Amino acid sequence: MKLITFNTGQTLAAGYIDGGEAVICAEGETGRRAVLNLISGGKSAVAEWASSGGRRVPLAEIRLLAPVPEPLRDIFCVGKNYYAHAAEFHSSGFDSSAKEAVPSHPVIFTKATTSVCAPGDVVQASLDHTDSTDYEGELGVVIGKRCFQVSREEALDHVFGYVAVNDVTSRILQKNHNQWVIGKGIDTFCPMGPWIATADEIGDARALELVTQINGEERQRAKVADLIFDIPTLIETMTRTMTLLPGDIIATGTPVGVGIGFDPPKYLKAGDTMRVTITGLGTLENTIG
Amino acid sequence: MKLITFNTGQTLAAGYIDGGEAVICAEGETGRRAVLNLISGGKSAVAEWASSGGRRVPLAEIRLLAPVPEPLRDIFCVGKNYYAHAAEFHSSGFDSSAKEAVPSHPVIFTKATTSVCAPGDVVQASLDHTDSTDYEGELGVVIGKRCFQVSREEALDHVFGYVAVNDVTSRILQKNHNQWVIGKGIDTFCPMGPWIATADEIGDARALELVTQINGEERQRAKVADLIFDIPTLIETMTRTMTLLPGDIIATGTPVGVGIGFDPPKYLKAGDTMRVTITGLGTLENTIG
Repeated sequence: MKLITFNTGQTLAAGYIDGGEAVICAEGETGRRAVLNLISGGKSAVAEWASSGGRRVPLAEIRLLAPVPEPLRDIFCVGKNYYAHAAEFHSSGFDSSAKEAVPSHPVIFTKATTSVCAPGDVVQASLDHTDSTDYEGELGVVIGKRCFQVSREEALDHVFGYVAVNDVTSRILQKNHNQWVIGKGIDTFCPMGPWIATADEIGDARALELVTQINGEERQRAKVADLIFDIPTLIETMTRTMTLLPGDIIATGTPVGVGIGFDPPKYLKAGDTMRVTITGLGTLENTIG
Repeated sequence: MKLITFNTGQTLAAGYIDGGEAVICAEGETGRRAVLNLISGGKSAVAEWASSGGRRVPLAEIRLLAPVPEPLRDIFCVGKNYYAHAAEFHSSGFDSSAKEAVPSHPVIFTKATTSVCAPGDVVQASLDHTDSTDYEGELGVVIGKRCFQVSREEALDHVFGYVAVNDVTSRILQKNHNQWVIGKGIDTFCPMGPWIATADEIGDARALELVTQINGEERQRAKVADLIFDIPTLIETMTRTMTLLPGDIIATGTPVGVGIGFDPPKYLKAGDTMRVTITGLGTLENTIG
């Protein structure tokens, strides 16, 4: 099932995609948190939505929001989690925070809830007064159950689904402030969507392929199987000491090919189009403003 | 006004302290988010509480929770924000993430919402399998209004109040994972309280003094006036690119005297008592389990 939050023109709504149509399962202000509530409700809540058969609207007539437009808390993200990207970031001079290229332990940081924006939204690179805005296409994992001290073997039982995320970053702010909350948390710097696909629809996430294009030019292409710390390891590591909550999102890291991997760096500029496409998760397209 | 969230034995409640009594302004499950809602409601909501004259319970008969037991999103924190602490942390060998002792820009990271615990709660250092748990007494600033691009001059208009925070940290996890979410976000590692004092009650926050005692021995003593990046600068810097929300909490940094400032480090061990006292904000006491 592909879950979406959207605006019909008249109202805010949440539901799922069926063919070329959006099926409305929650409407009005409750729509804003409906996908989050659905995730907490688990399989029975999803079954209820699937059988509810609400009003249908052609996809062409709606405007998508992020599937979770107001996340429960900040988005967890993983830094330097593909080998070739870890190397390009390390040699770029922008990684102020590590001596080694390949991390020995998962590097976890957060993006502020207020950085989340929708497919099609303009990413306000003009807020980055250092003019060093860069893209990072990533697979996001959506946690389905409150969980603590989950083993690698059981980890995937706690995954509700997957979503495409673009971890847009100000490279100079990321470097200057040392910890990454400022460089990563700028308003509109976390495009997400177009939909959350439930885990059963995706199957083995390792088989997913991620492609990022800038103005139509391919910059990143990778298989999720190439993650340094795979999804079960991330969940095991994080829940060893921290409780994860239904609706938590973990952006798993970006592959090689970001702007600072080039010499000189290819920063984003006004009018540029970013497109992150992941198998089964659609295309997340945003322009730079 | 001193705002609290608490358990009366029969019910969850929120209200304020008047002399030796807790005045109940919200009861039942709504109590859990009542202080957060009050903050969003601003001055008129506070005036309404102050004049509501709800049921009164002696303080001795209640159990305090964190004043905001379920924060809106993760707690913002500032690293290395007192000169002498920046030096002790830098020379300890645990600061994997910086070349210089004194940061040129505010170092901002987050603590997970699930790390928040109450005055009197046991901090579960046993979850830190690296046995390197350390205390950090800090002044927390509570944001009162949604704000963006606020100048230093106007910054304090957006402060709702203040609260004591203990930014408990696993030093080895902080170092190993490079970004600090894992080392700082362990369940129960963010004691907060006993109350939020409104800004009008505190006056000039620079005059506040913070004292941390471990098992009765004084380890930290500092004036908030000694912050490297003061509160207006922190708010100006963060809101230059990020929207802050009513109820956001910014823990402003810890002064010299943490456990890793000693050689060998004085880590916390089961049974230890931590006590963070700040002028006007009471004493936040927790034991180590």
